[in-house]
Amino acid sequence: MSRKLHARRIEGIDKNIWVEFSQLAADYKAVNLGQGFPDFSPPHFIQEAFCKALNGGFSKHQYTRAFGHPNLVKILAKFFSRIVGREIDPMEDILVSVGAYQALFCTFQALIDEGDEVIIVEPFFDCYQPMVMMAGGTAIYVPLKPREGCGPVLSSADWVLSPEELASKFSPRTKAIVINTPNNPLGKVYQQEELHMIADLCIKHDVICISDEVYEWLTYDGTKHVKIASLPGMWERTVTIGSAGKTFSATGWKVGWAMGPGHILKHLKTVHQNSVYHCATAAQEAVAVGSQREYDVFGTEGSYFQQLPKHLHEKRLRLADCLKSVGLKPVLPQGGYFMIADISNLNVDLADPTKHVKYIRFCFVKVFLTQEQYYVEHKFKHFKN
Amino acid sequence: MSRKLHARRIEGIDKNIWVEFSQLAADYKAVNLGQGFPDFSPPHFIQEAFCKALNGGFSKHQYTRAFGHPNLVKILAKFFSRIVGREIDPMEDILVSVGAYQALFCTFQALIDEGDEVIIVEPFFDCYQPMVMMAGGTAIYVPLKPREGCGPVLSSADWVLSPEELASKFSPRTKAIVINTPNNPLGKVYQQEELHMIADLCIKHDVICISDEVYEWLTYDGTKHVKIASLPGMWERTVTIGSAGKTFSATGWKVGWAMGPGHILKHLKTVHQNSVYHCATAAQEAVAVGSQREYDVFGTEGSYFQQLPKHLHEKRLRLADCLKSVGLKPVLPQGGYFMIADISNLNVDLADPTKHVKYIRFCFVKVFLTQEQYYVEHKFKHFKN
Repeated sequence: MSRKLHARRIEGIDKNIWVEFSQLAADYKAVNLGQGFPDFSPPHFIQEAFCKALNGGFSKHQYTRAFGHPNLVKILAKFFSRIVGREIDPMEDILVSVGAYQALFCTFQALIDEGDEVIIVEPFFDCYQPMVMMAGGTAIYVPLKPREGCGPVLSSADWVLSPEELASKFSPRTKAIVINTPNNPLGKVYQQEELHMIADLCIKHDVICISDEVYEWLTYDGTKHVKIASLPGMWERTVTIGSAGKTFSATGWKVGWAMGPGHILKHLKTVHQNSVYHCATAAQEAVAVGSQREYDVFGTEGSYFQQLPKHLHEKRLRLADCLKSVGLKPVLPQGGYFMIADISNLNVDLADPTKHVKYIRFCFVKVFLTQEQYYVEHKFKHFKN
Repeated sequence: MSRKLHARRIEGIDKNIWVEFSQLAADYKAVNLGQGFPDFSPPHFIQEAFCKALNGGFSKHQYTRAFGHPNLVKILAKFFSRIVGREIDPMEDILVSVGAYQALFCTFQALIDEGDEVIIVEPFFDCYQPMVMMAGGTAIYVPLKPREGCGPVLSSADWVLSPEELASKFSPRTKAIVINTPNNPLGKVYQQEELHMIADLCIKHDVICISDEVYEWLTYDGTKHVKIASLPGMWERTVTIGSAGKTFSATGWKVGWAMGPGHILKHLKTVHQNSVYHCATAAQEAVAVGSQREYDVFGTEGSYFQQLPKHLHEKRLRLADCLKSVGLKPVLPQGGYFMIADISNLNVDLADPTKHVKYIRFCFVKVFLTQEQYYVEHKFKHFKN
């Protein structure tokens, strides 16, 4: 055709590392460790709930409520009311989405306009950047850095934000900040004081907080996950993103959600109703049943939210030993699916990383706790200065 | 907050008739006939395929290929290669989406820019308009009208486009035209000559055709559905939208697709990878199995594509009789889920329709062939002059 075929909004966001990884894995018949998904099935109780939904009459095969299957939003509201410490309205404050991914998309499309700035904490889940760009916003980066002068970096807790540096990133154009706790790929779980520091800046500058908490139930060594939305003054300005895929080891079901105050959520719903409208009914019913089950056994040994981290904790230790045995220095994650390691001991030419890595002395081995194998991923892109 | 909370792109698209209908149905415990979904289950062979996928190991519970589960894109390509009469590449020419709805969204977001015009044939499936607006485009309407001077309008085939009027809508700003065959809500199935007329204009003005064909297998009285993409010179400029939900009576599974030349599809994929990324794996596997089955029995009495229209045909006749018995004049649809009727005989004040309806002498009773009941819907909005 003679004119430009594509819309301007998709310029510069057509490349995707996972598309490349998946293709390479398919081409070379390699195990695909390019994405965060387990090599095991969801727990039986939720698989059974899915089959039961499929065999339970026509209604689970047809559309359900656009903004979330009633059974699901009700139990999510009940569950998170207990966690956040306030009454969450199932119909107003929750939007069920096609995975956490689509909840993020709805959030950026609903709230970010041409000229808005969005602060993103590095390193980050890769989709934040193109989603901000597609919405016409500008990403402003602020890095987590290894604590200085504290000896070897042994845990993801050793990676911290500089309060001064973070404060310097806020401007009159700042519309939102994106945090991710537990962080992908570091495994860092933000502590209460760190969240307070971020919250104070959000309130001071009247900025929305987009808190990606898909690994919220997956923390190790007794690390406590705190929702920034539960801090004073933050519910009103926070969109919390959750994932049934990560919660129940069912990433292929594509059920996620956004949670927040109705006056913000209503705009996400507008995007949702004009982009996908409905989410799959039976999968939502199954997640509702699974969530009710977890609500009932919460805090007990029977809870999957206790069993899954215990299971991955073992793998985590085994992989850390494995990395050490070949001379690498693993950084133990406090949460999430991944592990990074200092691979500076390796005498390999990583396309001359000195040119790219200025302030981070770590190259990453991102290790999948959910899988038996691991691979090396070069994560230089957003660390070049 | 002090500043405007939402992005400009969602202004004017926050209202949705189906959200209102669903809420009203829930509030008054009424049967929800506000949306096009059946009150029966998908055929057994595909339900079984879904359960089998769920019970077949971990991989069907986790992510699959972002642009479509390999088994599904392969059989779709094979199936539609036969229909379109050309080799369709499963990896390049097909994008699996979260229902046809998300395929439409990807299409508009990928191709429509600020200032572009999109021609929409009236009456139309309601989402085209807000989707065009969200992409920054301007919708230009052209109506299907009852043929003049041919006696009573008895069939959806009596509703036609004026070639002159359609031609007058094309401008240098026209980027695309949206057609829907079989049409929702009329039931009109475009004939080959009508499609040729549209195709000639698309080629002449270098315009993309977005052809929504979700009811492609659902035609009555031997009416043949023709894909505009199969006409000379049209494959290169057509995005065809399809739906497993409508094809297999499984609207709640949310599996659809866009099909077209790789040079257009690649832009839809960019939107897809930045908005939902994956679609549900097990549902895609089930649709793949169901599609393979239909491929194998195509054209025989065992084909669901023959059984479903036969089933709905009976309901269609019964409903037409039902409408006639209360003094209405049904317009028999050639395809799709719906029926309209002339309700001018009814002595009711429909908010003074004479003020709104100028050139269409029909008010609609939109009847759901897929359900046992029917309801009256006022469809004046896009008919006011």
